[in-house]
Amino acid sequence: MNNYRLLIQYDGTRYNGWQRLKDNDNTIQGKIEDVLSKMVHKPTKIIGASRTDAGVHAKGQVANVFLENEISEMELKNYLNHYLPSDIEILEVKAVADRFHSRLNAGNKTYVYRISTTNQKHVFERKYLYDLNENLNIDKMKEAAKFLIGEHDFQSFCARKMKKSSVRTLEKIEFHKENGILNIIFTGSGFLYHMIRILVGTLIEVGLGTRKVASISDVMMKKERSEAGYLVPGKGLCLLKINY
Amino acid sequence: MNNYRLLIQYDGTRYNGWQRLKDNDNTIQGKIEDVLSKMVHKPTKIIGASRTDAGVHAKGQVANVFLENEISEMELKNYLNHYLPSDIEILEVKAVADRFHSRLNAGNKTYVYRISTTNQKHVFERKYLYDLNENLNIDKMKEAAKFLIGEHDFQSFCARKMKKSSVRTLEKIEFHKENGILNIIFTGSGFLYHMIRILVGTLIEVGLGTRKVASISDVMMKKERSEAGYLVPGKGLCLLKINY
Repeated sequence: MNNYRLLIQYDGTRYNGWQRLKDNDNTIQGKIEDVLSKMVHKPTKIIGASRTDAGVHAKGQVANVFLENEISEMELKNYLNHYLPSDIEILEVKAVADRFHSRLNAGNKTYVYRISTTNQKHVFERKYLYDLNENLNIDKMKEAAKFLIGEHDFQSFCARKMKKSSVRTLEKIEFHKENGILNIIFTGSGFLYHMIRILVGTLIEVGLGTRKVASISDVMMKKERSEAGYLVPGKGLCLLKINY
Repeated sequence: MNNYRLLIQYDGTRYNGWQRLKDNDNTIQGKIEDVLSKMVHKPTKIIGASRTDAGVHAKGQVANVFLENEISEMELKNYLNHYLPSDIEILEVKAVADRFHSRLNAGNKTYVYRISTTNQKHVFERKYLYDLNENLNIDKMKEAAKFLIGEHDFQSFCARKMKKSSVRTLEKIEFHKENGILNIIFTGSGFLYHMIRILVGTLIEVGLGTRKVASISDVMMKKERSEAGYLVPGKGLCLLKINY
């Protein structure tokens, strides 16, 4: 068996997210598996590093796949890109050791969440932004973000009650504003279901002044989803990079 | 009557171009006129500077409209943006002198044509690129472009036999390549129907080596559409700027 690591980018607009749950469920994993299965004439599964939600984009998703036949990296990349739709692209294929597992070996992941804070329509980026159209106090948001950095139980920021641990480490939250768009960049060891989108909704409430900065540690302690902010739309989120 | 100048950007992907020919023909002009007509409760026409083709984009289209009622620039801009679809945006509204006519007063216009020359899929820009996927000899294309600069009869590069003059002045053709995308930027006093897209098709043939550089002045002299190169797709073209 040969193990191949795939670096993948996609426009998530028309998909039900990364993870395939059944046949023809219009997922990115499903699209890639269908092409691979046709290529090797048998059902083929891939292992993805991050289960991005419906509508979420990626510039640096990673997956790996075991294939019986040996095929060159270039050939596999070109074959996949040829048969995949125009909104999914394999950026790189690398033959790797059998022990490589895209999810279990993943280190830090970096995501960006993009918010339009003015009434500009951003015609050419409109599918990759959350159109909030409200001014935000970024200094307050940065203060609130400090309470989130480090190792914490993020259960309050998770849409599902976790059976296993909901403790994660958030390394960094960075804020960059340009041309009416606020980019919030999250780097951490792992993220719970909907965690970034609930963190962003909570930070936005701080930025709007409807939630106090100091309330954040309270929210964390209570371990209740209802204590945290609202869920922002998937289309503003993009998986940038996974470190190995 | 009050004359308002509109600066407009749009993603042309889902439209049959700028110019309205009949009701509900899914044009950008039509969409803007429909909103204005509802606003003032009577049929209202706008005058556009450039009749961009189906699928062509704009970051700097200009139009003007006469309105009986006085309305503030800000109010008109916000009203239009609120009721226009998310792929059409009014960037600026300016009250101007009655004599201002967006088309007749237009000076130089600048367009960019974008070509992907590698097999990269450019997932996030795929709707704004012509996916050629062939390497081009840009030096040869620059040589050919020199024959096009200046005042010429461009009838060979026009899809319609012109009744009036087909003489135009091309001020500049610039080439910029970055990240597998070749940008060809045209600045000139006016462009005939399909002219830029036929110029690009002709330059591509030179860049591919299937057409000689020296043939360009021949093509120009013959004044026959069949002498020039192929018509490249509209989606690679974007109107950048109109000078007044």
